[in-house]
This record gives sequence, structure tokens and C-alpha cells, in this order.
Amino acid sequence: MRSVPSVTKPEQSASPGRLIDLPAPVGEDLAAVEARLGDEIASREERLHDVARHLVGAGGKRVRPIVVLLVFHAVACAAGAKPRREDTIEAAVALELIHSATLLHDDIIDGGETRRGRPSALSTFGVADTLVAGDFLFSRAFALCARFEPEVVRWAADACVSLTEGEILQGRFRHNPAVTMDDYLEIIHRKTASLFAAGGRTAAHLAGASPALSDAMAECGRHVGLAFQVSDDLLDVVGSPDATGKPCGIDLRDGNPSLPIVLALQSDQDLARLFADPHPGAADIQNGLARIRRAGILSAVAERAASHVGAALAVLGRLPDSPYRAALAALTRSLSDRVT
Amino acid sequence: MRSVPSVTKPEQSASPGRLIDLPAPVGEDLAAVEARLGDEIASREERLHDVARHLVGAGGKRVRPIVVLLVFHAVACAAGAKPRREDTIEAAVALELIHSATLLHDDIIDGGETRRGRPSALSTFGVADTLVAGDFLFSRAFALCARFEPEVVRWAADACVSLTEGEILQGRFRHNPAVTMDDYLEIIHRKTASLFAAGGRTAAHLAGASPALSDAMAECGRHVGLAFQVSDDLLDVVGSPDATGKPCGIDLRDGNPSLPIVLALQSDQDLARLFADPHPGAADIQNGLARIRRAGILSAVAERAASHVGAALAVLGRLPDSPYRAALAALTRSLSDRVT
Repeated sequence: MRSVPSVTKPEQSASPGRLIDLPAPVGEDLAAVEARLGDEIASREERLHDVARHLVGAGGKRVRPIVVLLVFHAVACAAGAKPRREDTIEAAVALELIHSATLLHDDIIDGGETRRGRPSALSTFGVADTLVAGDFLFSRAFALCARFEPEVVRWAADACVSLTEGEILQGRFRHNPAVTMDDYLEIIHRKTASLFAAGGRTAAHLAGASPALSDAMAECGRHVGLAFQVSDDLLDVVGSPDATGKPCGIDLRDGNPSLPIVLALQSDQDLARLFADPHPGAADIQNGLARIRRAGILSAVAERAASHVGAALAVLGRLPDSPYRAALAALTRSLSDRVT
Repeated sequence: MRSVPSVTKPEQSASPGRLIDLPAPVGEDLAAVEARLGDEIASREERLHDVARHLVGAGGKRVRPIVVLLVFHAVACAAGAKPRREDTIEAAVALELIHSATLLHDDIIDGGETRRGRPSALSTFGVADTLVAGDFLFSRAFALCARFEPEVVRWAADACVSLTEGEILQGRFRHNPAVTMDDYLEIIHRKTASLFAAGGRTAAHLAGASPALSDAMAECGRHVGLAFQVSDDLLDVVGSPDATGKPCGIDLRDGNPSLPIVLALQSDQDLARLFADPHPGAADIQNGLARIRRAGILSAVAERAASHVGAALAVLGRLPDSPYRAALAALTRSLSDRVT
């Protein structure tokens, strides 16, 4: 189970902004987010700029910024005014910077050689510069957050703490067949869902939502993140490399406990031995993938993704109908549609 | 040139709080900082707590927190009230957490095997957990800063950006004899002085200083940091291992352009060849140290440290006399006294 955006689709299909129709104001805001990201990754140290541009400039799906923008507009639309639209763009930029920082550091931890369909920053620039560039992006995000009220800064920072705790938890279960479903859920709540939840909460708050509605939008974001992660796990087993832009079996290779692996391990001792191997060969990985596909657990994985989609949609029902709510629902559905 | 606290003195002499007499209120606040550091490094992930405790719990000089506390009391004393004493303790904790995060990451970059007189977190816990623990401490600092007004968050974040840019700049000149005095000054301004300056500015601001006085205290902090770094560089050439708790020659070994190295390089081609060697042997390092000691540049290094001490003291003259100002002056003087 990689962090979500390590799934690299070809650029022409990589952006949910292209998979779903974004309402014009959100399209404008997303363009503003892109421009601001370009500003924020600049540094007087050209090397830092190079590393950051290598990752951030290579695209990525921008799912977190899009969720933030859609939640903001969907909630503000109901309120009838959007005085903090600019703040929301900045929050979306900060979240994408934090996410990008974690991708750079994840590649060091996993020894990841490719990212977004090309050589990773790690293999291009080495450990030292990749590490420092992650710290740089994180610092930039922190500086951006300075404009916000204490609770917003705290939500972002607490999500970052959670990310690090998720990373450590995942490390404990790397190549460890003792991993349970509860462990898995804890990992993805911390590593993936926490930043989506912070984004949903922040966007709702900036749109003027009540604390109760902000809580609900955090929950919505959390489920969107979980649906994304689970479907991503499934794509690593059943995805078409032509469509995903990457080979299958990366989770098996890296020893990351994805949901298909966790479920299949429960009844397959041979898979357990394979998963425990710190350096499985290519044939082992193909064998493991075949075992997972035959284990009868893939429908349960797809159902889990669908259940998070359903939960996110149920929360969206609390908002009045609008083009923004419709786009958020379409984006959410597209996550599980990727694997059906 | 390591980050400052990689100089490990034996515990009985490691703390400036023990080298100088701290006024009782500052001693109380420093104890509060220690307790709060203990809280902040705790995590539900025991491994994160272990890594953080290994570094933060091993002591360190706490120079940054002490400077923050002394500046606050010296300025607030003049104002006649200390309503933000609690905030200042939190700011001191945040700065020490940021500094600790950079030490963990620096060890990965340098492959540092010892830190504070014992095996480093890197050699004890490995790259992955050390990296994530750095991110964790940084995130905790960020969460602590949430309580502050935007300018305070921005000063901290901008110092962090500067730290990363300094790290990259230093990397460009690692084992690179083309390094100039200007390069050296730029590196230490970014890597060491920026966090001290942010601390001085924040402490003055929290004490109710005018923007002009806050600027002055930032300048004071900057000079204290520079004096500390330059004297630290000198100790790596002339320090007694019994007193410093570490062997000499670490900057030569790691290829870090310290001030003695930069100055000696200007007239010593053999030293240049040695400095360019990515893996100098023990005899090379001893030879290099001897060349630097004979180069006639050590007094210029000591004078540079003394000039920063003098500049810091001159700024302190803007504050009314108080036990806090006196302690800050004594701490500042003790930095260059270390090497005379």
C-alpha cells in the first residue's frame, strides 16, 4: 500500500479534473492552485527548485486540492457567499505541498525508483537532496498556513503528526504477515485519510460552516481518502498497466500490507512466506499476484471501496444540491469506478 | 561545520545554564521547557517516542530555548509585565523541536554515527525511522505554533525554509575546495543564525517589544548564533576531546567547509586536495588538522567569533540593565570564551 499518488496513470487520464467535469469556478481555482504551487516550489537554491519541480511539476492527480475546492464551493454555495475563496486556494496549495513532501520522504523510506511514471526524485537527485527538498516543501506549507486562525493550523499539523505515526505503523508491518485488518485500517486512516479529513474540515470551515457541518465534511473527506486508498490497493492487483501506467505487484515487492494482501494472507501460508521475503523475485511476485487473484477476496476489497464511496455520498446528502456537490459526488464515485 | 549542537560536551559542562548563572525565573522556565519537550516527543507509536527520546532526551545545550527565555525576560522586564510568559515557553519548545528535527535529518545526510557523545539515532534506529521521527518533531513544532499570531508562525516557518536552503548550499560545497568566505557566511547565516534570529525576534515580540526592538533582538540572536557556530568550528580544530567530548577533525572528515578550513584553503593546495577527497583516512585528517593549525588563520577565526560576540553585546546595550540582560551577555561571552 503506497501513498495514494504513487499510482501513476498516464498524464492524459491522471487528473480527476479531467475524469469529471469541474464547475467553472472550481476549474479557475484549480488553475490558481497550480500557479501558486509553481510559486511555492521556487527557491534561491536551484537544486531545491529542481527536486521540487521534478515531483510537483510532474503533475499528479491533485485529488486533495480538488476535494478542498469542491467542499468549499459546495458549502459556501449554501451559505450564499464566498469571502474566503482566496484562503481556500492557499489551503489547497498547503495540503498539496505537505502531500508532496511525504512522497519525497516515502521514496527514501521505500527506496522507490519510479514515481508518476518516471525516475523518482530519489533516483534522480539522491537521498540528501530529496530529503532536504521534502523538508523544504513542508516548511513552505507551514509558512502558507501562517495566515490561518489557530484551529486551521492545528488541523494541518495534527494531520502531519498522524501521517508520521502512520508511516511508522506501516513500517512495523512491512513484510510482516502477522498484519491484521485492524492494523490495515489504522494505517490507512493515519497515512491517507487524515490529510483528506483535514482538507474537508478546513474547506468547510473556510466556507463558514458550523462546527457540526465541518465535522461532517471532515468525515466526508476521510471516506473519500479511504475509498481512494482501497481502490488504489486493488489496482495494484488487477489494474491494467496500460491504464495505470505502472506494473502490478508493487505492494508485494515492497512488502506493504495492502488490503488484498491482508485479506489473502488470512488463508494462504505460501503467500505469507512470500510476503515475509524482504527481496522477492519477479517470479515470486507474479506467483503472489496469481494467488491473491484466486483467493476469492477481490470482491470484498471492491465492496469495501464502494462502502466508503457510499459513506462519503451519504454525508454529501447533508448539503443542498449544487453543481459543486454533484461534482464532488461524481469524483467520489469515480474512485471506485476505477476498479470495476 | 556541523549544526551547532553536534559538539558534544560531557553532560556536566554541556549546558550554558550551568556555565552561566540563570536568574531564578529563567531557571523555572527552562525546567518548564524540559517538561514540555518530554510531553511533545511522546507518541502513540513507541518507536517514534524512542527515536525522539534518544536525541532530545540525551540533553544538548538548549542554547536556543535559553536565548529565547532570556530575551523575553530582559525585554518584558523593561516593559514591566510578562503576560505572555507561557507563550514564550511554548515558542522555546517549538524552536528546540525544529532544531532537533534538523539534527536527525542532518545525521542521515552526513551519515553521522555519533551525536551528543553516543551512537546517533541513525546508527541506532536506521534511516527510515530517523527520517520519520524528524518529520514527527517538525510536525509537533508546527502544531505548537498554531497558538501564535500569523507573524510568529511565519518567522518560524521562514527560518525553516532558510535552514533547508542552507543545507543545500552546504551540500554544494561539501568536499569542494572552491568554497569562499562569502559562501561560508551565507551557509552559517541560513543554517545556524536564522533559527537564533527567529528566536530573538519572537521572544521580543512576545514580551511586547516594538517592531524596531524586535528587529534588534533578531539581530542579537543572529550574532549569538554566528558566534556559536564560528567558535564551534574552531573547537573542531583546537578543542580538547576531554572538554568537548568528541574528537577533532570531524569537519575535515565530513567535508564540511568550516571557517578554519575555508581560510586555510586560501593558501594551501595540499589541504585543498585533502579536502576534496570524499573519504580521507585518519592520517589525512591529522595531517590536515596540523596544516590548519600551522596556517596562521586561527587568530582570525577567534577574532571573528569575538566580533559577533561584540555585535550581540552592542545590541543588548539597547535594553535597560537587568539580571536577564546580564545573563544574556554572560552567555554570549561564554561562546567565545570556549575557545580562548
